[in-house]
Amino acid sequence: MPVVGMVGGGQLARMTAQAAIGLGARFRVLAGTPSESGAQVTRDVVVGSHLSLADVSAFAAGCDVVTFDHEHVPGDVLTSLESSGVLVRPGSGALRYTQDKLAMRDRLTGLGVPCPRYAPVSSVADVEAFAAAVGGDTWPVVLKAVSGGYDGKGVWVCSSAQDAAEVLGHGIALLAEEFVPFRRELAALVARSPSGQGAAYPVVQTVQVDGICREVIAPAPGLDPEVASSVSATALRVAAALGVTGLLAVELFETPAGGLLVNELAMRPHNSGHWTIEGARTSQFEQHLRAVLDLPLGSCSPAGAFAVMANLLGGTDPDVYDRYIHVMAADPAVKVHYYGKEVRLGRKIGHVTIVGEAGDDVEAVRDRARRAASYLRWGTEDGG
Amino acid sequence: MPVVGMVGGGQLARMTAQAAIGLGARFRVLAGTPSESGAQVTRDVVVGSHLSLADVSAFAAGCDVVTFDHEHVPGDVLTSLESSGVLVRPGSGALRYTQDKLAMRDRLTGLGVPCPRYAPVSSVADVEAFAAAVGGDTWPVVLKAVSGGYDGKGVWVCSSAQDAAEVLGHGIALLAEEFVPFRRELAALVARSPSGQGAAYPVVQTVQVDGICREVIAPAPGLDPEVASSVSATALRVAAALGVTGLLAVELFETPAGGLLVNELAMRPHNSGHWTIEGARTSQFEQHLRAVLDLPLGSCSPAGAFAVMANLLGGTDPDVYDRYIHVMAADPAVKVHYYGKEVRLGRKIGHVTIVGEAGDDVEAVRDRARRAASYLRWGTEDGG
Repeated sequence: MPVVGMVGGGQLARMTAQAAIGLGARFRVLAGTPSESGAQVTRDVVVGSHLSLADVSAFAAGCDVVTFDHEHVPGDVLTSLESSGVLVRPGSGALRYTQDKLAMRDRLTGLGVPCPRYAPVSSVADVEAFAAAVGGDTWPVVLKAVSGGYDGKGVWVCSSAQDAAEVLGHGIALLAEEFVPFRRELAALVARSPSGQGAAYPVVQTVQVDGICREVIAPAPGLDPEVASSVSATALRVAAALGVTGLLAVELFETPAGGLLVNELAMRPHNSGHWTIEGARTSQFEQHLRAVLDLPLGSCSPAGAFAVMANLLGGTDPDVYDRYIHVMAADPAVKVHYYGKEVRLGRKIGHVTIVGEAGDDVEAVRDRARRAASYLRWGTEDGG
Repeated sequence: MPVVGMVGGGQLARMTAQAAIGLGARFRVLAGTPSESGAQVTRDVVVGSHLSLADVSAFAAGCDVVTFDHEHVPGDVLTSLESSGVLVRPGSGALRYTQDKLAMRDRLTGLGVPCPRYAPVSSVADVEAFAAAVGGDTWPVVLKAVSGGYDGKGVWVCSSAQDAAEVLGHGIALLAEEFVPFRRELAALVARSPSGQGAAYPVVQTVQVDGICREVIAPAPGLDPEVASSVSATALRVAAALGVTGLLAVELFETPAGGLLVNELAMRPHNSGHWTIEGARTSQFEQHLRAVLDLPLGSCSPAGAFAVMANLLGGTDPDVYDRYIHVMAADPAVKVHYYGKEVRLGRKIGHVTIVGEAGDDVEAVRDRARRAASYLRWGTEDGG
């Protein structure tokens, strides 16, 4: 059986490990410490830094293909691996669009994919000029780090030139984007294999609070089927154009007028796809493995009328297990996923999923999922 | 998080490991070698013998609860563990009914549960007397080892006194049972927690060839809902009466007249329940963990119109992976489970499951599942 190596030992590696067991693929993780979420449940763990070419190369030497649970491996490490013959999926050519937001915006624009208006900025004057150009000195303006950024860090919503000046003061390369007063957020998850096969999951609605995903509803309620189909086609087209191998998640804004603008791209299993573990015939984790192994892709069909996922954020009480009994007794359909991570306030430490049966009301199932997640994080000041 | 220890490192441990990852429960395996199926994918592996009290005790010392992937831990080892305060689930009092088929028959009969007629035998004269008593010197007669037996070994269908004499010649304790010319075989899978909660999966049809399970169809096609319900109720009643904690699988014969007779019991995840990984809201592996941890049980509702599982038996070609591409390309809905076991002719090395969508034809899906399993074991003389 081939060995799939995943760089990064977080919860995405953890859930990919589960899928690898089913496929019988051998799975190896490069983790910063042996206690990381993904490393806890993997037999073959290499401890090292994803920033070090020596560490990543030594790790890759034992793998048939290398993939990632995050986008933080430096571009020169990726290209060095590729030059030495390692199968890196997705490759450096695709991953650069997750590491350089300006390159991503330029590329998507070149492909005719609608994005928020944007411009590179390096001074308050630049930001003010951008705001003026976008629509008559309109604040807020969104500033984004061109490189880096995770779960909202690296994105700042600036209400004034003064806010912008503070962000600019950090001296990092920045991009200004128009603030999109969206109706809701959507995400399209697709897979693409090196042979060029593509597969698309139903387009979902995501609910973010303070830049952190709280909830996913699959499929996105009330989304026009033609719009959904067009979003999937766009995501597949982007995956092909960028040469993505593995998963591509495309996060979008649905504007009040019903338009769709691409917000972010990710090339790995994605929080917006956790619902697929129970809610689709092939989980995103199995799909990612199949794609990077260049196996034919699995069915993305739903496994129920709909599914709701709610993230579990750490509260102030470290004992999550203590509350399993209440959550499970209250709702036998709740599937609890706990990542084995130390509980810290606001940290993603797990998620719950409920697959809705035919006839179930989406809002009622959302309430059940939120209640379960909220109960599990008992003790937080943030009732969520 | 609690530590669940599973004695035995086979494929049941492997699939339980997957479920433990989701729940966040820590999972530890006692395996004969570190290369066993379940040990391959478990971080915390103890190598030792399930027959040795010292090995099992040392293993148990690091566990909050001990459970099993087979029934072969000797009764005195189990009672010693219990005396020393280890939580053993299922306990020795229940497990003895899987280790002593005569005690099982007597107990079930005492509970009023219909079984094939049976009698302990120690001579050819005993077997002949039993055959005569059952229905006028009717052969074949089934001989079963009172203790031991796995996947058909330990069960002999004797066509004559001469056949019986050969089995008796091995000097092991034997039980004679009437040969039931069944219409088909069914299996009822239920879970029971130490708190006494019970949950029942839909009753399934199993297809066995030469004593080896080949195929499971869930739910059993055309089974009268009242009969199904009564079978589930019986299984739950047996689980409660025997004090089972964890899963109980009850294998039954459906007689030509429509009656049901209990064939075997197993108190662990069972081959007849592998379909639940994709086909039910809670897999049997998660359910077993929840039960032995005394957590509330999960929903046993189906995740599709029906599900078909086909076992993958080893052929003569060791390279199963090489054929993934064909099987997956032919049918994106096939879920392949490979156990990481060395391929040997006739050995269970994996299984495939297809969840049928509304409107799918059961026979057509059975064909697809059989075709996938058959293709994966390419090279066997046994076309299967």
